[in-house]
Parts: sequence; C-alpha cells; structure tokens
Amino acid sequence: MSKKRRGITRKVGLPPGTLVHVGRENSADVGISVIDYTSKDFQEIECSSPEALKQYVESHTNSWINIDGVHNTQLLAATGRIFDLHILLLEDVANAYHRPKIEDFENCIFLSLKMLGVSPTGDDIVSEQVSLVLGKHWVISFQEQPGDLFNNIRERLRDSSTQMRIRGCDYLFYRLVDTIVDNYFLVLEHLSDQLEALEESVIESPTTNRMVEIQQMKKRISSLRRSIAPLREAVTAIEHLESPLVAKSTMRFWRDVYEHIVHATESIEIQRDYVSSIMDLYMNGVSNQMNKVMQVLTIIATIFIPLTFIAGIYGMNFEYMPELGFKYSYFILWGVMVIIALFLLRFFRVRKWI
Amino acid sequence: MSKKRRGITRKVGLPPGTLVHVGRENSADVGISVIDYTSKDFQEIECSSPEALKQYVESHTNSWINIDGVHNTQLLAATGRIFDLHILLLEDVANAYHRPKIEDFENCIFLSLKMLGVSPTGDDIVSEQVSLVLGKHWVISFQEQPGDLFNNIRERLRDSSTQMRIRGCDYLFYRLVDTIVDNYFLVLEHLSDQLEALEESVIESPTTNRMVEIQQMKKRISSLRRSIAPLREAVTAIEHLESPLVAKSTMRFWRDVYEHIVHATESIEIQRDYVSSIMDLYMNGVSNQMNKVMQVLTIIATIFIPLTFIAGIYGMNFEYMPELGFKYSYFILWGVMVIIALFLLRFFRVRKWI
Amino acid sequence: MSKKRRGITRKVGLPPGTLVHVGRENSADVGISVIDYTSKDFQEIECSSPEALKQYVESHTNSWINIDGVHNTQLLAATGRIFDLHILLLEDVANAYHRPKIEDFENCIFLSLKMLGVSPTGDDIVSEQVSLVLGKHWVISFQEQPGDLFNNIRERLRDSSTQMRIRGCDYLFYRLVDTIVDNYFLVLEHLSDQLEALEESVIESPTTNRMVEIQQMKKRISSLRRSIAPLREAVTAIEHLESPLVAKSTMRFWRDVYEHIVHATESIEIQRDYVSSIMDLYMNGVSNQMNKVMQVLTIIATIFIPLTFIAGIYGMNFEYMPELGFKYSYFILWGVMVIIALFLLRFFRVRKWI
Amino acid sequence: MSKKRRGITRKVGLPPGTLVHVGRENSADVGISVIDYTSKDFQEIECSSPEALKQYVESHTNSWINIDGVHNTQLLAATGRIFDLHILLLEDVANAYHRPKIEDFENCIFLSLKMLGVSPTGDDIVSEQVSLVLGKHWVISFQEQPGDLFNNIRERLRDSSTQMRIRGCDYLFYRLVDTIVDNYFLVLEHLSDQLEALEESVIESPTTNRMVEIQQMKKRISSLRRSIAPLREAVTAIEHLESPLVAKSTMRFWRDVYEHIVHATESIEIQRDYVSSIMDLYMNGVSNQMNKVMQVLTIIATIFIPLTFIAGIYGMNFEYMPELGFKYSYFILWGVMVIIALFLLRFFRVRKWI
Amino acid sequence: MSKKRRGITRKVGLPPGTLVHVGRENSADVGISVIDYTSKDFQEIECSSPEALKQYVESHTNSWINIDGVHNTQLLAATGRIFDLHILLLEDVANAYHRPKIEDFENCIFLSLKMLGVSPTGDDIVSEQVSLVLGKHWVISFQEQPGDLFNNIRERLRDSSTQMRIRGCDYLFYRLVDTIVDNYFLVLEHLSDQLEALEESVIESPTTNRMVEIQQMKKRISSLRRSIAPLREAVTAIEHLESPLVAKSTMRFWRDVYEHIVHATESIEIQRDYVSSIMDLYMNGVSNQMNKVMQVLTIIATIFIPLTFIAGIYGMNFEYMPELGFKYSYFILWGVMVIIALFLLRFFRVRKWI
Repeated sequence: MSKKRRGITRKVGLPPGTLVHVGRENSADVGISVIDYTSKDFQEIECSSPEALKQYVESHTNSWINIDGVHNTQLLAATGRIFDLHILLLEDVANAYHRPKIEDFENCIFLSLKMLGVSPTGDDIVSEQVSLVLGKHWVISFQEQPGDLFNNIRERLRDSSTQMRIRGCDYLFYRLVDTIVDNYFLVLEHLSDQLEALEESVIESPTTNRMVEIQQMKKRISSLRRSIAPLREAVTAIEHLESPLVAKSTMRFWRDVYEHIVHATESIEIQRDYVSSIMDLYMNGVSNQMNKVMQVLTIIATIFIPLTFIAGIYGMNFEYMPELGFKYSYFILWGVMVIIALFLLRFFRVRKWI
Repeated sequence: MSKKRRGITRKVGLPPGTLVHVGRENSADVGISVIDYTSKDFQEIECSSPEALKQYVESHTNSWINIDGVHNTQLLAATGRIFDLHILLLEDVANAYHRPKIEDFENCIFLSLKMLGVSPTGDDIVSEQVSLVLGKHWVISFQEQPGDLFNNIRERLRDSSTQMRIRGCDYLFYRLVDTIVDNYFLVLEHLSDQLEALEESVIESPTTNRMVEIQQMKKRISSLRRSIAPLREAVTAIEHLESPLVAKSTMRFWRDVYEHIVHATESIEIQRDYVSSIMDLYMNGVSNQMNKVMQVLTIIATIFIPLTFIAGIYGMNFEYMPELGFKYSYFILWGVMVIIALFLLRFFRVRKWI
Repeated sequence: MSKKRRGITRKVGLPPGTLVHVGRENSADVGISVIDYTSKDFQEIECSSPEALKQYVESHTNSWINIDGVHNTQLLAATGRIFDLHILLLEDVANAYHRPKIEDFENCIFLSLKMLGVSPTGDDIVSEQVSLVLGKHWVISFQEQPGDLFNNIRERLRDSSTQMRIRGCDYLFYRLVDTIVDNYFLVLEHLSDQLEALEESVIESPTTNRMVEIQQMKKRISSLRRSIAPLREAVTAIEHLESPLVAKSTMRFWRDVYEHIVHATESIEIQRDYVSSIMDLYMNGVSNQMNKVMQVLTIIATIFIPLTFIAGIYGMNFEYMPELGFKYSYFILWGVMVIIALFLLRFFRVRKWI
Repeated sequence: MSKKRRGITRKVGLPPGTLVHVGRENSADVGISVIDYTSKDFQEIECSSPEALKQYVESHTNSWINIDGVHNTQLLAATGRIFDLHILLLEDVANAYHRPKIEDFENCIFLSLKMLGVSPTGDDIVSEQVSLVLGKHWVISFQEQPGDLFNNIRERLRDSSTQMRIRGCDYLFYRLVDTIVDNYFLVLEHLSDQLEALEESVIESPTTNRMVEIQQMKKRISSLRRSIAPLREAVTAIEHLESPLVAKSTMRFWRDVYEHIVHATESIEIQRDYVSSIMDLYMNGVSNQMNKVMQVLTIIATIFIPLTFIAGIYGMNFEYMPELGFKYSYFILWGVMVIIALFLLRFFRVRKWI
Repeated sequence: MSKKRRGITRKVGLPPGTLVHVGRENSADVGISVIDYTSKDFQEIECSSPEALKQYVESHTNSWINIDGVHNTQLLAATGRIFDLHILLLEDVANAYHRPKIEDFENCIFLSLKMLGVSPTGDDIVSEQVSLVLGKHWVISFQEQPGDLFNNIRERLRDSSTQMRIRGCDYLFYRLVDTIVDNYFLVLEHLSDQLEALEESVIESPTTNRMVEIQQMKKRISSLRRSIAPLREAVTAIEHLESPLVAKSTMRFWRDVYEHIVHATESIEIQRDYVSSIMDLYMNGVSNQMNKVMQVLTIIATIFIPLTFIAGIYGMNFEYMPELGFKYSYFILWGVMVIIALFLLRFFRVRKWI
C-alpha cells in the first residue's frame, strides 16, 4: 500500500513527460520478442536492441512486439522514438500504478489494463500492468514481468489456419485484451474459494477472532474492483473512438469483451456481499458466544447462590435455632435443596437456556 | 457458487466463438421439436437430427423450433449453420452463465433470459437459461432441460381461433418471454412465503441461531435480482432496435412485459427490505435474550448475596457476639432477611425487570 | 402481502388481455353513475347496465362516468367495447396490484393511481386503485369500492358558477387526480401522529420490546412510498405526451399536482428518517437498560462479596485465631465492614454509577 | 412537525387557487411598505391598503413593495389583482410550507425560499418563507413576519452612490436573495457551535444519555438541508429561463449566489458527518462504560470468590481436619490468601484491566 | 472549523464585490515577485508596489506574477485595476474558504485550488488556497503564505532549454496546477502512513480507547476529499471552455492532470474504506475484550460457587450430620471438589474458553 504511493511520489516535482519507472523494483533484463506474420508467412524473432524494430514500423506485415520489463526507461524512450509514440503515452507505460484507460493518439490507440494472478503462495492476488499499443500494422505489448499468459496466442498465431492469421492487427489487439480479461475469472474463482473457506471456518468455530482476515478479504476485493471496473469504460470507448485502426467487423467481439468485464465486475459485487455476509455471521458468532457465556454463568450462579445462602443460615451460631436439634433436619434440608435446584433447572429448560 | 465459476473458467484461453458448454453437467439426449403453423394449418414434428430443420429456414409458414439441452455442441453448431446464426450467438447459447441480454443480428434477434423455478424440495430456487432467437419466419428456443412451462403455449397454438395463430412469429416470441416472466411471480410468491415463515419463527423463538438461514435468504434474493433485473434493460431495448422483425403493433405488449419485470424487480426490493427487517428482529431478539439472562442473574445475585453476607456474619466464631445469645435472635434475623428480600423485589418490580 | 401475490399469480399462464380480476375479493354490486354537464346544463344519472353509456361516447357534452367495483369483468368488457378501450387498458383496470402509471392510447389517456386512506381501526393504511380514462368528451373513473372522496367534486359540478363547469373534461380529469393527491396528506399526517406516539413511548418506557412495531411502521412507510413515488413520473409524463386531449392551459395545474407529489414523497423520506431515528432511540434504550442492570449487579456484588469473605474468615474453625478471643473484635469488625462499604459506595459515586 | 402537516391538510378538498393561509397562526396586522427609486430619486412610503400600489405597476421608476404577513388572504388577492399575478402564484405565497422553487410567469418571475434564523432561546432554528416576485419595474417581497434582515438593503438604497440605485429591479431582486443566502451561514455557524458543544460533552461525560439530543440535531440538520438544497436548483434555473426580466449582466452574480448555496449545502453535509461521528463517539462511550463495569465486577469477584471458598473450607465442622489444630495454620492461610490476591491482581495488570 | 465559518460570516450583509479578507489572520508583508521571460530572455524582479506591474499587462513577453499574501485588500484592488480583473474574481481571491473552481472571464481564466501540506508537527494537514489567473501574456498566482512549492518551476524557467521557456503562458499555468496536484500525493502518502500506524496500534492493543483518533482521521479524510474532488470538475471544464487563452496542444496535458486528480480522489476513497475497516477492527477489539472479561468471570464463578456451596454445607451446625464424624470425610471431600473443578475446567476447555 504505502509502497505504491512511495512509487508515485518519486515523480513529484518532475516535469510531465519525464520517463521515471514507477512500480515494483525490478532489475531483470528486458526482453524484446517480435512475431511478424501475414496469413501466409510467420516469423518469430528475439531482439536484443530496439533498433531492430525499425523495419516493422512501415512494413505491411502484421507485427506483434512484446516487451517484458518497463523499468528500462532508455529502452522505452528508444522504442517511443522508433514508433513515434507520444511522450505521455510512454510515461503511462513506465508508471505501473494508474487506472486502466484507453487513449486515442494520432497514429495509435493506447490501452493499459491490469493482468491479475494469484501469488505463488496462493494467499494474495498480484496485479501487473500491461500496456497495449495498436498501430497501423503493429501491436506493441508492454509487460512488467515476463509471463506465460500470451503463450496461448503465440500458439494460435503459429497455426496458419486460425482466424488470427487472417484478420489484422486489431484482431490480435482484441485477442490480447480478451485473454487478460478471461484470466480474471481464474482469479475470481480463487477468491471465491477463499471466501467459502473463510465462511466455513467462521460457521464452524465462531469464537476465533477472524476480523483481520475478513478485513483483508474486503481490501483484496476492493482492490480487484479498482483494477477491473475502469476497464469497462475503456472498452466501451473503443466503439466510440471510430478510429480507422479498429475494423467495424471486430466491434461485436469488443462488445463480447465488454460483457465479460461486466460479468466480472458483477461477480466482484457478489463477493462484496459475500464478505459482508461473512462479517455478519462472524459478529453473530461473537454475540452468541457472549450470550452462552452469560447463560452458563447465570445458570450456575442462580442455582448455587440461593443454596449457599441456605447452607449459610444453618452455619450460624445462634444459641437457639430449633431446627439444628431435629434428627432429620440435615436430610430434609438436602431434599429441599435438591427440589430448589430441580425447579431452577426446569425454569431454565423452559426458557431454552439449556 | 463455485461450480458456476468453475464452468466459466473452462473457457479461459480458448478463442472466441469456440463452442464449449458451460453449465450444469447434463448427459440427457437432446430433443428437437417443431411446431409449424399458419392461421389455417398446424403441424407438430419431433426431429431426430438438425438436418430436418432446413425446410423451415425459408418457408413462409411460422415455425417454432424448441431444442431441449444445449450441452450437445455439435448439434448447436449444425443448427447454427442451417439458420446462419453468428458464432458469438451460439457461444452465448452454450454458456448457461451469463446475464440476460438482447442482441440484434443481421438476420435475427437474440434474447437470453432466465427461467426460474422452485426446486422439488421447495428449499431452493433453480434457474435455467433460455435462449430465444427470432428470425423472419421462425423462432428457436433453447432450454437447458426439457420443461413444461411452454405447454400452455403449445395448447393455444393447437387452437386455430387464438391470436397466436393469426399473428406472426414476433407474437410467439413475445408470448414465450411473457410466459417466462409471468412465472417469476410464482417464484417470488414462494420466496415470500418462506420469508413470512422465517419472520414468524424469529419472532416466536428469538433465541435460536438463525443467522445462517437469514444470510441464505439474502443470497437467494440477490441472485434472483441478478437474474431478473438485466432483463428490464433487454426488453426496453426491443423498442429501440427498430428491427423489421418486430411489428410495431406488438410494441404495446412488450411494454406490458416491461411493466411486469419492473413489478417483479420491485417485489424483490420489497423482499430485500423484508430480509433486513427480519435480521433486525433477530438481532433484537438476541439482544433481548442477553438482557433477560442478565436480569435473572442480577435479581438472584442481588437478593441472595446480601442475605448470605448476613448469614455469614452470624456464622463467625467470635467469643463475644451478644446477638448469638438472645432467644429470638434467629427468628428476628429471618424477619429482617424477608424484609430485605421483599424490598429488593419491589425495587426490581418498579424498574420493570420482573 | 401474500394475498397480494396470490392475486397476481392467478393470471400466470393466461394470454395477455384476458380479463381476470386481481385484487381483494369483492362481491358487491357494481354501480355506474354518470354526470353529464356543459356550462349550462347538468344531469346526474344512475345506470344499471353499460349499454346506457353509449350515448355519451359521441355526444359533445362533458360526461363523467364513475364505476364502483372492477371485479365484474363482464361489465368491464362491455364498457371497453362501448368506449373502444384497448384490451391491455382493461386488463390494467381489472388488476388492482400494479404501479401507478400513465399510458397514452390513440383515443384516450389512461392513468392509474392509488387512493389512500386510514383503515377504520386507525391502525393501518388501506390503498385502493383508481383508474382514470380521459377521452374526448368523457372521463371514466374506476374505483374498487364506492367511496366519498369525489363527493366534493360532484358538489362543485352541481354549482354552475365554478371553473369546472366552464372548463372541459381535461380539467375534471385533473381535479380527480388533484383530489386523490391532496388526500395523501391526510394519510401522511396520520402516519406522522403514529410515529410521534411511537417515539414518545420508546423514550418513556425504553425497555418494552417495540422492534416489531418499529418494523411494521417501516414497512408501512415503504409501501406508501411505492404507492406514491411512481405517480411523480406519471404526472411528469402528461406534459410530454403533447396529447390534444389535454389543453396547454391546464399544464400549470399539472405542475402544481406534480409539486404536491414531490412534497408528499419528501414527507415520506422525512418519515423514513424518523423511523430510523426511533430505532436508534430504541436500541439505545435497550443498551442503556443493559448497562443499568449490569451496574446494579456490579454494585451489589462488589460491596457484599468482600464483606462476605471477611465474615467467612471469622467463621473458620482454627483452634488458634487470636482475634476471636478479643472482647471488641466483633464490633471492630462491624466498623471495618461499614468503612469498606462506604468507601466502595463513594467509588461508585465518583464513577457516576449511582 | 405535526403542526406543519395539519396546516397543509386544511387545504384538502378545496379547488386549486383557493387562497387559504397555510402556516403558523398569525394575527398581527399586515404591513405594506414601498421604496420607489431611480438613480436620482428615492421615496419610502408606508401603505395602508393595496389600492395605493396601483401607481407602481406601470410607472417606470423601480419599486420595491415589501409585504409583512401573508395570513391576510384578502390583501393577497387584492395585490394579486393589481399586479396581475397568477392565482397559483398567490396560493404559493399563502402556503408557507412548500419547497423553495422558481417559476416563470408571463409577466413576472416568482421565487420562494426560506429565511432561516436562530430562535431567541438559541436552541432551535426558525424558518420563515419569503416569496419574491420580479416584474418589469417592481419587486414584491412577501414575508411571514416583519424582520430586519432587509434593513441593510434599505440602507444602501437610500445612498444614491451605490450600484443598487443605478442597476434595475433585477439587481435588487438578486440582492434580496443574496442577503437571505448569506444569512444561512450565520445559522450554520450557530449549529456548528452547538455540535462542537455536544461533541465535547459526549467526550467528557460519555455515560450520560445523549441519544435524544443527538437525534434532535440530526433532525435539525435534515430540515436545514431540505430548506436550502432545493434553492440550488431554483437559482440554476434563473440562467436557463432566458427571461427578459433578468439582464445578462447580472448572471455572474447569480452564479455567485449559486456557489454560496453549494457551499452552504456542503457545510450541511459536513455537519451530517459530524453528527454521525458524535453518535459513534457516544455509542463507543456507552460500550466502554459497559466494559468498565464488567471489569470492576470481574476483578472483585475473581479475587474474592476463591478466597471465600478457602474460608468456607476451614469453616467446615468435620471432626478430623488436621490443619485446624496446627498453631500457625491461621496465619499461614492469611499468607496464602494474600499471595493468591496478589497473583490475581498481577494477572489483571498484565491484561491492562487495571 | 468554527473559525472557518466565523471568517465567512464576516462578509454577511456586505454588498457583493466588497473586498474583505476571509481566512487565517495574517499580518505578514505581502511580497510581489515577477518572472518575465521569452524563449531567449529571462528576468526576475521583486516589486514593492503593484504599480510596477503595469508594464506587463500589454507587453508580449510572458510574465509570471506571484503574490504571497491575500490579506492586503488594497493591494488586491490595485492589482485588479491594473489587470482589469472582475470584482467577483478579486472577492474570490480574498476569500480563502471556497471550493476549488474555474471561471472564464472575458480577458482571463480564473482557477482557484487548494495547496495541501503536512503541518510541521506532522499531525495535521494544512490547506492553503491558491488562485491562478491566466491572461494573454501573463499568469498571476496568489498564495496565502510564501511557499517553496513553486521553486521547482522557477528553477526550470531559469534554464532556457526547457519546454517552459518555449511554450506560452498557458503551459506555465498548467505546470503550476500540475505541481500543486503532484504534491497531493505526498500528503496522501503521509495520511496513509498515519492510517497504517493507527491500524497497527488498534490490532496490537485493542483495548485502548481510540475512537476519538479514528473520528479525527475520518474528518481529515473528508476534508481532503472536499479540497480535491471539486478540482476534477474544474479541470474538465478547461477543455470545454474553448478559450483562445489555452492552446489546443496543451489539452492532452490537462487530461493528464485530470487523471492524476482522479487517481488522488480514488486514493482518498481507499483511505475512507481503510478508516472504516480500522473502525471495524477497533469495535471488534472492544467486543472481544468484553467477551474475555466475561469469560474470566464466568470461569472463576462457575468453578468456585459450587465448591463454596459444598463447603457451606459442612459448615452447618446440625447436631446430626453423619459425614462429619467419619475419619476421612475431609479428605474425601477435597477429592470430590478437585474432581468437580477438573470437570468444569475440561468443560471450558472443550468450549474453547480457555
């Protein structure tokens, strides 16, 4: 949390367009991989420097340039110069902490969104920013870390019979977004499993203090919502951009993505309700626990306090207490006390305390 | 809950338009039944394979094709080819877990909505997705399970004097939706009865732990709302589609359906308020219970603790305690103790504790 | 509540436009009364059958046809045929359980709204549906039960000097709505008196369980809001209908009605806040009660438990307890115990517990 | 509260435009004062009857007619006839209980708003309705009670060098509204002081029951909001009226008024938050109080109950209890009991209960 | 809080456009500094009187006039005359307590916003109003106090190679706003650190009363939101002003500022959730504490009350109590009591109370 903000404040006071990496520390090498394809040809290249990308700017083949690692700002700047990307676009690529958004530039469309995943320990959700730039014959994707989410797409591109090879760059662009959005459901499912486990444990052992866990789930869900919800707006905007870069024929696919995002946000709302229902259950558990403690105390005290009083009476040392001398007094008293106790037990039984 | 999501995630990573059945497991045979009718003629046919449907695509008679079971994706694909249905439409038919929606395709209108029912045990609400496709001279209805909700409509179609035989396919389409929406009220009534029973039991025995039940009702109502509310939007959209497939003269009927949906969603809102009122009653019951337990404890303790103290005094073994020797001390003490007890009882009576 | 829904479900499965009465059981005779007037002439007629209404359809005098009782569906149908009313309009007239709404038909404007009243016992609020139909030279009003709310209007119609006689049917239509809306304030006032009484009783005797009453008030207010709020929309719609049936010159009057409805809904909001404030007061009363019970227990226990302990000490039977033999031990002990008690009382006084 | 509604219901059943005074009882005489001015001339007149106002209707001097007291409906009607005011306008003037609003009539603009003040005792907020009518060369202001809020404006009008003398009636109209709105801040400040006092007292003596006071503050703030918030809308409307009566050059002043109203409503929101924060503090105080009571009880009981048990043991009358005969038993026992007590005190100290 | 309002009420009753300083008392001297620059030339001047500013009004060089201190209303008025500023603009400059806003005047654009900072003690957030006026060739910035936030910008202006020297006054205007907005993140970060510290302390020592602190954080966040949120609207408005003073080419930069403000308001929402989560944790802590206290009491009482009763029995003085005479009675009794105690301890262990 605080790390995030600390990142942002690194930029305070700098002029706009200054490329500063804002995000998790990362010292890994930056990888550039290119897939150049038409419906007939297909080529995969690993580049070591951005200069090698120059050939793809104007070529009429479709090129997908994937860059893993955005902490190398020199490389970002170089790529920007080659593809003539606006300085504010590059700034957004370098800043891993902004809201998903779309922006229409003269020569390209810029879309940034969050790629979500479950942390290796399974306890937390990790979020990575992905920036996609759609140009006339190229798509550039920037990832913070190398990931395998796009392998699926690479696989299909290798197969010349797929739609992806036939359709243009805007379809590839759509498929990248679609893949990331589809992946949200895996994360949501994981969260949902966690919630079910939490609910079960709250119902089973209602006395354990689970408030911190519940609050953490709440925060996790809120943060998920903030990662996904603004994307809805961004995807809607694509239709209204009326950019020549996006073919009318892919619009229905975008609407499909839109619906998936709506579905995801709705699932998040369900989970919010779920957490607050778990909270209600927990609070009820605490309150029931209290009630039970009080009942045990009351039952014990109510039965034994009067009996102790009676015992106290006959422990008094008055010289003249006639009962003390009777032969069966002691046994009669026991009888009286048992009757009192039974009567009180019955009273509690009627009130359903025991 | 988790099953639902597991279903959806089966599709993650697949290209759009891949037909994968997402929904409850189902291994039953798929049934295809056709009703072909004009104002004069009427015919009911059971088809064994989708090829038999070809004749209805272009014929000028009205045809209602009802398909029970959407898990057979080959059959879906075949039907799609025959009626020239968009791949995304078929994908939506095969996915039983999306929000109610309408979509306007070049040659047809697609409407998917939820058919709701009470589970055989009466404890739960079951939801089934129904997809309706309206073409020029045909309506296709896809159901997850064979059901008898549409029998009513079949009955009326057999009767040549009804409006349904005179009016075209768009009227049949409307009647299918209307029948499903009308059925919502049966489910809402059932839920309402359950709520009344729950409220009664909360008022009658406020000490039983009913939090889990209350939370379940809450979830049930939320899920109902999610099934019904988006349909409102979808039905409104019909008017704005200005599709030649829907006659202007049926518009007023659609507005009627719209009003029923609004009525249903409003009833759901009432039930939400109802649940939260039951929750308030329950919490109040718990809290009153606590108060009563405390009062019993306090009354018993307050009366007997001072008396026990007095008995303790005269149980002391001091050599010189003048009261011990007086003849009537014991009886006087009893009197004093009775007076103290009566005074305290009166004190509690004034405070309305007893 | 459940009765309401049971009513609605009687219609499930029937084709649209089937006239089924949905509402409270009613076996009273249906009364038809006509007031036919121009600025000069005035006539009051009781009709026994709808056929007698035929003459008013085309006549150029203003006619107000009032029908008490909508459970006689034959009569409804006959009236509908005479005035050429749409089948869905009649269906809405017969269904006493739908939201207030306005609808514009080719030859008439249909407005349905709720007439509210206090039940004879004063405990509940009764709601009756009134349907108004404005035609070219006639207004038809349908009521569920004969009522005296419109007597006022009849009175004024009998007086030839009033605006009502000079202005046309749309003004009469407006006055009928205005009368019903004005009457809302009587109901709201009644409710407000009930709330004040409830608040007073909660403040005066905070320990009585009033949760059920509070929840009932809440439900009553919600149901009131649902009866009134949709009317706002309906009345706004009149201006936008631009129907030739409503003269421009009456628009300002409609705006006046609109403001009254806004005022009424605002009053309902105030009452909602009022109920929740009463609830807060009640909860606070319960919680204070608890605190007081605990304080009494604590004070008694804290004073007497230590004293009892001391008495217990000197009740021990050790052979060698020097204090037991001293002459004034007993009296000194009493002194010590009084001092302890006074000290503890002072402690509680400082803490403001007593 | 109930008075308010009773007032409104006096009008139920009367035809629209019937002049009935709705508001606080008032039997004072009605005062009419006129200020007639141009940039050069200035005249102040007290009128005894509305007839004297006729000369100002058509004269080209600017006239400000101020009428104190709206309960005299004859006078209202007469004024209405002279200035040709719409009957619904007069009805609104006579009704002190409606929402602030603006209305555009053919020959004038009508604005009604609330003048707020602190009651003489300083405990409550009093609200008075002011109706302003702007005509071509005149402004009429209706107040329920004579007040001194406008003296300021009178003072400035007397001074020929002020803007008010140079600019027309619309500027005077604006200044009247501005004066009333500025006065809101005095009321808000008073309320804020009350809230601060309440907060302080809740923090200082958290055990006193302040729920009723808190709820009263809540109601007061709600009622304030209802008095001020609708005015925002009304003032916005002035710009959109495009009435020739309001010069374009005063628009920027209206926007200034608008901003003040926004500021006032925002302050009210802050105060709402403030009240709910005080409520949280109070509830927390109650709950802490409870905790402390329980802790005192628990500490006393936990220390003395075991000790009393031990004393009880050695109060038993068994013939063979070896400890009883040892010489130092009694003193050893005292030692043991002191050690137990110290141990328990330490236990509580560690748990931070004492 | 109350000071704020007191400030505002100083203006009540004064005509609009009267220059009255509303804000913190300030008796420091007012400083005027000018930076006059073109892409080639650069000059920094300290002015002692506003008359010296006259030369910059019409000159074609870019001039940035920074005025520290707005309490000197004479100087404000003089500046206003020189730059022909509207009287309402000056009034807004002099009033430090209004919402951020933008206004478009004939010859200039006026933007007022809040500069936020952490107080020297680090406990509170201080807010200062900054007013910016953009004219054709000049920018005037008014600050309440001299501050060093703009030093950064001065530094860059001194460097002739920066964009700021090349671009016009509108870019400088943008950079001033951007600098202030960037600074918000430092404040948000500080607040976030405070929240983390508060959360930690609530979790670590849940019994300390932290309600006042939590409520203070809540107020601080609310006040922050009110300072920042309206700015969003204001910045959006810049695009819609279509003023010739703002070049189209800087629009993308304004959108960037807009996004930063959205980000900041979103962070504030997160912090609001955070505070309410801390509140939940605190309340849970209080409630758990209560539970634990009750459990200790119940355990002690439940174990010792029955044992004390048994001891009481054998302390009775009946003449015939056979057990008293048996030799091992005492030891057997001890055994019984130990067994009872162990049984009860086991009972509590099973219930997880200990």
